[in-house]
Amino acid sequence: MDLEPLFERIGLAFDSDSGIYVHKKMKIPITVYYDEERGEVVLLDQTKLPYEMATWRSSDWRKIGSPGIKGMIIRGSQAIGCAAGYAMLLAAKEFRRCKREEFVRRLGEAGDWLKKIRPTAYPVAWAVDLVTEVARRGVKEGKDFDAIFSSMKEAADFFLAADLVLGWFLRQEGKKYLQNGDVIMTHCNGGSLSSSFGGHALGMIEEAYAEGMDLTVVSKETRPRCQGYKLTVWELNRAQVPVIIVMDNMVFSSFKKYGVSKVILGVDRVARDGSVANKIGSADIAHIAKMHDVPFYYATSYSTIDLSIEGNDIPIEERDIEEVVRFYRLEAEDFKRKGVISERGLSEWPPSNLLFRGERPKRGKILVYNPAFDVTPPELITMIITDIGSFKPNEIASLTEEKINAEVKFRLEQWGIKHPLA
Amino acid sequence: MDLEPLFERIGLAFDSDSGIYVHKKMKIPITVYYDEERGEVVLLDQTKLPYEMATWRSSDWRKIGSPGIKGMIIRGSQAIGCAAGYAMLLAAKEFRRCKREEFVRRLGEAGDWLKKIRPTAYPVAWAVDLVTEVARRGVKEGKDFDAIFSSMKEAADFFLAADLVLGWFLRQEGKKYLQNGDVIMTHCNGGSLSSSFGGHALGMIEEAYAEGMDLTVVSKETRPRCQGYKLTVWELNRAQVPVIIVMDNMVFSSFKKYGVSKVILGVDRVARDGSVANKIGSADIAHIAKMHDVPFYYATSYSTIDLSIEGNDIPIEERDIEEVVRFYRLEAEDFKRKGVISERGLSEWPPSNLLFRGERPKRGKILVYNPAFDVTPPELITMIITDIGSFKPNEIASLTEEKINAEVKFRLEQWGIKHPLA
Repeated sequence: MDLEPLFERIGLAFDSDSGIYVHKKMKIPITVYYDEERGEVVLLDQTKLPYEMATWRSSDWRKIGSPGIKGMIIRGSQAIGCAAGYAMLLAAKEFRRCKREEFVRRLGEAGDWLKKIRPTAYPVAWAVDLVTEVARRGVKEGKDFDAIFSSMKEAADFFLAADLVLGWFLRQEGKKYLQNGDVIMTHCNGGSLSSSFGGHALGMIEEAYAEGMDLTVVSKETRPRCQGYKLTVWELNRAQVPVIIVMDNMVFSSFKKYGVSKVILGVDRVARDGSVANKIGSADIAHIAKMHDVPFYYATSYSTIDLSIEGNDIPIEERDIEEVVRFYRLEAEDFKRKGVISERGLSEWPPSNLLFRGERPKRGKILVYNPAFDVTPPELITMIITDIGSFKPNEIASLTEEKINAEVKFRLEQWGIKHPLA
Repeated sequence: MDLEPLFERIGLAFDSDSGIYVHKKMKIPITVYYDEERGEVVLLDQTKLPYEMATWRSSDWRKIGSPGIKGMIIRGSQAIGCAAGYAMLLAAKEFRRCKREEFVRRLGEAGDWLKKIRPTAYPVAWAVDLVTEVARRGVKEGKDFDAIFSSMKEAADFFLAADLVLGWFLRQEGKKYLQNGDVIMTHCNGGSLSSSFGGHALGMIEEAYAEGMDLTVVSKETRPRCQGYKLTVWELNRAQVPVIIVMDNMVFSSFKKYGVSKVILGVDRVARDGSVANKIGSADIAHIAKMHDVPFYYATSYSTIDLSIEGNDIPIEERDIEEVVRFYRLEAEDFKRKGVISERGLSEWPPSNLLFRGERPKRGKILVYNPAFDVTPPELITMIITDIGSFKPNEIASLTEEKINAEVKFRLEQWGIKHPLA
């Protein structure tokens, strides 16, 4: 597939300074593409943001998995799905000299390994399985490597193309909810940087702003990983959107000070009962928004809808204590360098024999609770805005996979994009 | 005044290792005392916490003002009131060779300077004015310096003694609200470290725990200055109280995960209408507690009750952007040292020409909002627990200065403590 016409139509142009495609109006880079000439997957390196905008490249499929996906150089389930699809191309190149059966077997192993890195990000499995299936069929049909590789690339490109086009539909859907003068609170980075381009909560805001709507965004820091401070503010600033940084404990204060008129967040997972799992802190905002009658929206790709689970059954992943402690380690080292504290102070606190994870702390112990996300109850959500339309929380249960797939297909066809196996 | 018997009765004993008085059971140090032998004011150095427990000493009254009070080596209005009282003793020593009139004049100037450092902390003015008035009377009565100094020390000691005794009354009052098995959420450091000893929200918890009650505390980090992470956790851990560190955006999650049964916070200012100004983030918790019927308490000294103001009229002080940005500077420097980002990344973001404070950001600009506190509306507060009894928010308006002073006097007399001018 030649993606250039699609990039062009969306407004993306290659920027030779940064080595990545950048939107002409919004100035925001795409997060992933495949450099055919050099045979490399190119990622926007989000671990360096906001300090530096740089790309990260590799021709090794393992490195796309780690550090690429595992080390969060690229993040967001759709974006890492695209990256995983392209990683399979790199794997195919590595295995090109293998016999047909071994080629298919090793491709399957590479795919399984990639899928295990982020087992809850369904698009990774979809992309890997699609590209693998295309290869398997090619082998079965006795095609030569170049033909197989070409059809695999079609499949990987389809994945990126579909995400770009569905992102466009999401932005058009979302803009229906925006009004001139809106002050919108957001949390974490549910934005362009967590999709291939222009998705989630921020894409619609950035596009509406580029089209002349007067909007202001209040971005919460989002401890402990601070994606709100580091990614959302950077991304919105690229698009020139006026932005206010606040700490996570300034929800009510921001409502009062800036007259927040809407809350719009990205999504990790929409459950069957219309509850939504998203970055830790989302539910706290939903409570306060409810008490002040501020509409609370989730904006997301259809791919985050999980009809197989109820909100209360979603297991809450707990992340590493180090994420929380990291800033304090940096501070202690800084204090040591400046002579504020002694060498002893570097190890004395937080004393690692006191800090732990667990259900309930004991006498003299300190527990660190670091859940990755929380689940917002459906009654606190005004609307779930998606690339296949908007749904009230209680309408999610009436969806089926067939209905969803039909809506996706309908939209992709409008842009002339067909599923490689259709 | 010989404070030793009072220290003994409260349970404080001099700890020669740390050079400060420490509670025998709770293991928590006092935050300020006067070392008569060396003629020095001794402060627990809170800028080094939690990395290192150390004292800071000075015989220079200016240094008690800055860095002592201004640099937050000591903090909390009552504690800095005590420190300011003792600073006046140091000033008196400096001016001892002055003629009587000049002695009084320079003492007045020193006091005015001290009061200006934290103009909203009333106890500073009370302590400075009391010690100054005692000196003035001594001069008027023709006493010699030693007699004047001795009566000034009585006055400064009275201030510390009164705070220690009222802290004891607050703990007894607060313990009425605690039950075996309680899981208590707190925010910032409304604790022993923000009083002379054992005050605010945490003192009652630490004492009840030392007496055998099963309690667990959930401490919120409290960005941007992180007093919850740095001071509250340290203080509670000294007292061996089981503690859970959470980020500021984990209120609802902590309620669900740990079954938080109560919220207890310290106080900056209680307004006439029963609303309470306290560290930014307090009101956010109050909203979520209300929606889940979790009792929400403020615990404080009578000195924070301000009958002259309504909650909505309290001006919200905005603090320096640097408080918010600091951790990111440390991170950028760390990334630079490790070669993650280039020299350019150190200055590129946050670009100082884009970051500012103000009412509303403009196109392409980033505003940082850093309010020092928020105001919790009275309808979200269950009870205001003080050292002179507990009040429902709507009962504050029925208080008068006379009533308050009578309650204070009544309690101090039970411990044999009399006002130096009474």
